[in-house]
Amino acid sequence: MEKTAFEAMERYMLAQMKDSAHDKYHIYRVLYAALDIAETEADVDMDVLLAACLLHDVGREAQAKDLALCHAQIGGDMAYSYLRQTGWPPDKALHVKNCIRAHRYRRNNEPESIEAKILFDADKLDVTGALGVARALQYGGQISEPLYILDAKNELVVEASDAERTSFFQEYSYKLGHVLDRLYTKRAKEISRIREKAMTDFYRHLFSEIQGLHKNGAERLGALLTKELSME
Amino acid sequence: MEKTAFEAMERYMLAQMKDSAHDKYHIYRVLYAALDIAETEADVDMDVLLAACLLHDVGREAQAKDLALCHAQIGGDMAYSYLRQTGWPPDKALHVKNCIRAHRYRRNNEPESIEAKILFDADKLDVTGALGVARALQYGGQISEPLYILDAKNELVVEASDAERTSFFQEYSYKLGHVLDRLYTKRAKEISRIREKAMTDFYRHLFSEIQGLHKNGAERLGALLTKELSME
Repeated sequence: MEKTAFEAMERYMLAQMKDSAHDKYHIYRVLYAALDIAETEADVDMDVLLAACLLHDVGREAQAKDLALCHAQIGGDMAYSYLRQTGWPPDKALHVKNCIRAHRYRRNNEPESIEAKILFDADKLDVTGALGVARALQYGGQISEPLYILDAKNELVVEASDAERTSFFQEYSYKLGHVLDRLYTKRAKEISRIREKAMTDFYRHLFSEIQGLHKNGAERLGALLTKELSME
Repeated sequence: MEKTAFEAMERYMLAQMKDSAHDKYHIYRVLYAALDIAETEADVDMDVLLAACLLHDVGREAQAKDLALCHAQIGGDMAYSYLRQTGWPPDKALHVKNCIRAHRYRRNNEPESIEAKILFDADKLDVTGALGVARALQYGGQISEPLYILDAKNELVVEASDAERTSFFQEYSYKLGHVLDRLYTKRAKEISRIREKAMTDFYRHLFSEIQGLHKNGAERLGALLTKELSME
């Protein structure tokens, strides 16, 4: 792709996302991870991949305004319109649109082309490793999700259903811990494995720090309070 | 302290903090860390320590409404009034007030009594380890602070002055990495050292994941774009 065309696409993307909480560095990380993955795959249409990565989240703001909308679907339509207006042939623009429509985690819309698989994997890699932990925690802060909840026995609640996730620990056990199984490309699986240790180490430390504090603390407090000390 | 007095104090504390973003588990973690530290210190007034820990952040909401106020000062006054109303003698209530006034990180108001030092240390321990990282990231999300910023050479910006901290990395280098030097008690220093590895490991992984992506990605992209591929 020519540098000027890429820069124009960048400007269009940034203009679409100006109010989005999803920060622009995410877009570049996905693009850069995709370029890494693409080096180990054959016959990748790099124009399609660049456009799909750069534009994959342009539907975020529409979704933020109306939660019934899916940013992958709207984003695909927006990207198609933009690319057609800038002279892309219909089949290439459609290919980009299909990549964007298939990038979302929870939709039953599997990526089919290699470019769609690379975008999907690059986007999922952003929830792995220390980076994935950091982003999940930041997002939790944004939506005022607690770091953890305790049950009546002062045990950290970890398991959760889709409807019931209300803490970082539940989010982790539901989603962050299971990204590897969802990836398509060999290189993405490799990167995910490299990053996995940082993620699980952090998770284990966090768990034991919190669980230890509450378990031991509640016991120490209980022992103190039954003593019924007088106060003079 | 009698259990009923403690529970009444708990109810007062929760009522003061009902709209606070600073979550109630923080209060219990500080209390529990303080009980841990207290086991290794001599002549600790446990009534004073319990009250100081439980009430140390009751001034948070007043500060949130008026940033010119200091929650440690107001909280100390509020705690004093509450304790006097519930029958505490003036000298004990004043002792709790002094502990609370001295617990804040950035004020030139050093804790003097052992109870004040324990509260100070227990509160600081909550910004160490995986827990400290998690809390800083959640707080960053709450105030829409970016995870990182890059300079013109795609290098992660880490150093920061007090006035200029605008990312997690800057917050870390300014504050999170230097807690140990501020602690007073032997046990708190020991806990901080145990937790330090989880924190620095995570920080290093996060740094290298992000820096690697942007450095290598920008190079790969540059190489692609100068090729000026035609699009047919």
